[in-house]
Amino acid sequence: MSGAPDGVVELLVCVKCRQGEPAEPEEVTRGARLHGALAERNLPENIRLIPVECLSNCTRGCTVALRGPGRWTYVYGNLDASHAPVLAEGALKYRDAPDGLVPWRERPEHFRKNCIVRIPPLEGAQ
Amino acid sequence: MSGAPDGVVELLVCVKCRQGEPAEPEEVTRGARLHGALAERNLPENIRLIPVECLSNCTRGCTVALRGPGRWTYVYGNLDASHAPVLAEGALKYRDAPDGLVPWRERPEHFRKNCIVRIPPLEGAQ
Repeated sequence: MSGAPDGVVELLVCVKCRQGEPAEPEEVTRGARLHGALAERNLPENIRLIPVECLSNCTRGCTVALRGPGRWTYVYGNLDASHAPVLAEGALKYRDAPDGLVPWRERPEHFRKNCIVRIPPLEGAQ
Repeated sequence: MSGAPDGVVELLVCVKCRQGEPAEPEEVTRGARLHGALAERNLPENIRLIPVECLSNCTRGCTVALRGPGRWTYVYGNLDASHAPVLAEGALKYRDAPDGLVPWRERPEHFRKNCIVRIPPLEGAQ
């Protein structure tokens, strides 16, 4: 699901998200704030933070996706900048699960309640 | 986003979906019915139909994903077996868009109203 090297995972953050609020001139979007809060943290090794355009989950944003080679891709929603520590924790567990499948009970509560969708790796789909 | 050859796209169908209905013994799930309706059609060339496990979009199923090398991945929901023709039409347009981005007005109405999420190709994310 990704061209990143083995063992490296990507944390995609939609930086366009306004969580349904109207756009204002020169506004820093809520998605950009979430990305900023993550960028300020020292994310664990081999977790690449990547700002992306709209992930089309606008009604349940802010939105992130976790993906990596040979792993299930997971999309999570209903996030804001305050979730940066939870996202860092969840991304670490995802990184350490070779197929991206973190046991249910080990997932952060926000991940358990706000999974938007998951997509299998090529290896899982065929 | 996929290991399929260039020009080949994958249409993943969650065959576990019960659209929130209780499971019954030996039931053919609604997801399996949708997959069956697609399998009975002659899908256009280079569109691979692939049954998959739960895509975790259970509240808005049935669910499919379209993906291919170098393309945006799109997930659509609120589907049933009657949508097989629409899915075939949408998959064809997706196949013919090298990056998977079909112009808004050209997308089937169901796709416009029921996009669950989209995920950029690696090339778009970095």
